[in-house]
Amino acid sequence: MTPVRNARVVFNSIPDGYPEVGKTISYDASGKIDPSTVPLGGGFLVKTLEISVDPYMRGRMRDSSVQSYVPAFTLGQPLTGYAVGVVVRSENSNVKPGDHLHGFGFEHQEYFIRKNMDGLEIIENPYKLPWSVFVGVLGMPGKTAFYAWKEYSHAKAGETVFVSGGAGPVGSLVIQLAKADGLKVIGSAGSPEKVAFMKECGADITFNYKTENTLEILQKAGGIDVYWDNVGGETLDDALEAAKVHARFIECGMISGYNTGGAPVRNLMQLVSKSITMYGFIQYRLEEKWRKAFFDYATGRVASGEIKHREQIYDGLDKEPEAIVDVQKGKNLWKVVVHVAND
Amino acid sequence: MTPVRNARVVFNSIPDGYPEVGKTISYDASGKIDPSTVPLGGGFLVKTLEISVDPYMRGRMRDSSVQSYVPAFTLGQPLTGYAVGVVVRSENSNVKPGDHLHGFGFEHQEYFIRKNMDGLEIIENPYKLPWSVFVGVLGMPGKTAFYAWKEYSHAKAGETVFVSGGAGPVGSLVIQLAKADGLKVIGSAGSPEKVAFMKECGADITFNYKTENTLEILQKAGGIDVYWDNVGGETLDDALEAAKVHARFIECGMISGYNTGGAPVRNLMQLVSKSITMYGFIQYRLEEKWRKAFFDYATGRVASGEIKHREQIYDGLDKEPEAIVDVQKGKNLWKVVVHVAND
Repeated sequence: MTPVRNARVVFNSIPDGYPEVGKTISYDASGKIDPSTVPLGGGFLVKTLEISVDPYMRGRMRDSSVQSYVPAFTLGQPLTGYAVGVVVRSENSNVKPGDHLHGFGFEHQEYFIRKNMDGLEIIENPYKLPWSVFVGVLGMPGKTAFYAWKEYSHAKAGETVFVSGGAGPVGSLVIQLAKADGLKVIGSAGSPEKVAFMKECGADITFNYKTENTLEILQKAGGIDVYWDNVGGETLDDALEAAKVHARFIECGMISGYNTGGAPVRNLMQLVSKSITMYGFIQYRLEEKWRKAFFDYATGRVASGEIKHREQIYDGLDKEPEAIVDVQKGKNLWKVVVHVAND
Repeated sequence: MTPVRNARVVFNSIPDGYPEVGKTISYDASGKIDPSTVPLGGGFLVKTLEISVDPYMRGRMRDSSVQSYVPAFTLGQPLTGYAVGVVVRSENSNVKPGDHLHGFGFEHQEYFIRKNMDGLEIIENPYKLPWSVFVGVLGMPGKTAFYAWKEYSHAKAGETVFVSGGAGPVGSLVIQLAKADGLKVIGSAGSPEKVAFMKECGADITFNYKTENTLEILQKAGGIDVYWDNVGGETLDDALEAAKVHARFIECGMISGYNTGGAPVRNLMQLVSKSITMYGFIQYRLEEKWRKAFFDYATGRVASGEIKHREQIYDGLDKEPEAIVDVQKGKNLWKVVVHVAND
């Protein structure tokens, strides 16, 4: 067999503000590989199928000397992160050709070789769902929503939850989990289409934060017992203002500050006044405890359509830089997946 | 008997920024009372002995239409709050002349009549401690430190805690509780005398935040597992930066923002990255659970001198307005008590 293209998406420079296509991240189609003959050295060859693009990736576009919960991307090297792929050849007894894998241990490259299964797991797909689902509602965003809702919400039927970013892949599942637990759900998002999707997910009160006053809506609803925070900044200040005594705040992300060096929050004294507990978390630290319960709960419900989810496909690895910038700027409508190759 | 003076300290106007003596709060000596004949209407007459002056009082100097965890002071009326007094006469079977009371249910007035015991409790004083102790280390500040340390620190021997405001009546007891639990303790305060007192309380690393770099000190110490926050603002940002994964933040107060409309915090994304839990709380919501354990633990240790504490007496009710302003500006050295009368 002759070599084929092995394109990749490379981290070029540390952005100041928003990342830029070509400058911060670029598509590089110069690589070649012969999948049938490339030496594996005891490892296995993976063909990338679907790549997850997520807000948190901005945090990895930093100087590698700055410590954080995920390593910085390496300048001049492919991005890494959550994806789905299929094993092409294997010299490792844990995986065989045809196995589908997902996890954080992917390089953003059409083909790559791995020695071991660190950061990867074999997908069980009894319902023959499309592979993209395993970077979305059955991947990192779905796990994020489920693990932290179960661990931190301490939700009781009849309480009220506010979910910002409620149409996103995490927020839309949080809305559905909260409804299943009998809560009144308020969801915010930034476009009419997103607002309509939150309604479809069962949210009782939905609004567009760009055209309506968040604080007024939360107060009119009688205040909140739980806040699921995807955005931080002013929205967090409003949620603090509208919180009830003993409210729980689940801090999932703060996209309002990712490209501006952190959005200031001024209302933290409400934590004291109202005995609020604020839980920061990262999905992978809860993985062991909740993984099985999540797939038991979600897989069948995704297959049956009971759990609603939306995805937006960017077709081809060359579209990944644009997809990344769109997510940082909130230009996407739904969960962004880069479709790299068919099975 | 002829009437005697019944002076009071009155809330005059809502401050914009720091409160001012005479303008915000004033001493009014025009009142008279005849303690031996004043009608009690089934209640009891209390003579005020010692009044507690605390940072949180700033929050009560607001428009009464603004909701908060404690009621606003009433314009034109005496302040209310934590104090110690003695019962002079009683028509209520729950208390008798000579009983000493403490609690939030005091008016800042030399004598006042109460119908019932709401917000008051009878002091047990087997060691004949000075009454001022019951507004300090055995009063609200001591309870604040003990209740929240027990409830939220999840402290393990060998961990590191940072206590800001570490020489204050709350912080200095937190330092001692943390040492008793086997932690390494870092304390910050704003003067050499305060730094020396933190050392006396057993803190391992002490510094003056006005002359040293908080973040550098926390990082050099290897980071922190617990942060006891009395100040908020930039110090909270530094603590977030220096926190370890799964750190616990106990939010007791944020004096850096009380007179400026809230000090901005920019570093909250660290909550997410490091899976930090932040516990806001108010002492009285933990009262039922921890009250007995606190007095069992602390009373004998205060009497024996094992628990160290300091107080600063402002002699006479006429000094209360000045005492209040000094506490807001951080001009006091130790726990401020207004001595109103002898037993």
